[in-house]
Amino acid sequence: MTAFTLHPRLAADTIAIGDLPLCSVLLTDDSRYPWLVLVPRRLGAREIVDLSAEDRAVLIEEIAAASRALRAVTGAEKLNVAAIGNVVAQLHVHIVARFAADAAWPEPVWGRGAALRYGAGAARERARRIATELGLVQLNGID
Amino acid sequence: MTAFTLHPRLAADTIAIGDLPLCSVLLTDDSRYPWLVLVPRRLGAREIVDLSAEDRAVLIEEIAAASRALRAVTGAEKLNVAAIGNVVAQLHVHIVARFAADAAWPEPVWGRGAALRYGAGAARERARRIATELGLVQLNGID
Repeated sequence: MTAFTLHPRLAADTIAIGDLPLCSVLLTDDSRYPWLVLVPRRLGAREIVDLSAEDRAVLIEEIAAASRALRAVTGAEKLNVAAIGNVVAQLHVHIVARFAADAAWPEPVWGRGAALRYGAGAARERARRIATELGLVQLNGID
Repeated sequence: MTAFTLHPRLAADTIAIGDLPLCSVLLTDDSRYPWLVLVPRRLGAREIVDLSAEDRAVLIEEIAAASRALRAVTGAEKLNVAAIGNVVAQLHVHIVARFAADAAWPEPVWGRGAALRYGAGAARERARRIATELGLVQLNGID
């Protein structure tokens, strides 16, 4: 029996915020856009349609909760929610806070230049605020 | 009281396939990518998080049903599912069938060149097959 593990590319590009019942919540390490990633902890899952209906019902509510938290922390003017996975096949859902003044507006953010990583303090502070909004116990390394 | 109407840009860029309980199902008129759009018939809705929890539960199952239908009709290697809405604010969810040999792979399809419209017969045939997979009564103009 193989346990679920986060895809190494997702692990490298994000900061862990904490775990909801279905999904791990990650902060993408790109200070150009406030950007969460939800990863359902289901071994081998690639597509939303391949989750069970029960998991899908949880997923859509975790998307809503993460969206609320991101909007509360950032004042997002628009949210972009997407499961793409053409490069990293492990199922993951992007939730990106968008602003008419951001670097890619009105285009989507994927594949647009190199990430501008947060400084350690800024990433920790944003992750902490998202975790608090989500009511998550903070993981080691965040606090 | 104002009735729900489809955003004119969505109407111009798509072919109507039919109505599920919550969403209207549209085929994007771009033969480069088999591409459905689901539009919840909720006046003023812009974000998934702003739907009621009841509507969200229906939405995720309609996304799953449309995903299954699109995969059955096209043999999609990957599905891309996204609610972006930076240009057209009316809430709509893209479901795009992707192939490693398609024109944009592995990048997302949004904002990549001009649509290559279907011929009338090809659009009608694809819409008909999706409608059949979804068990939808076909709209006027499709058959």
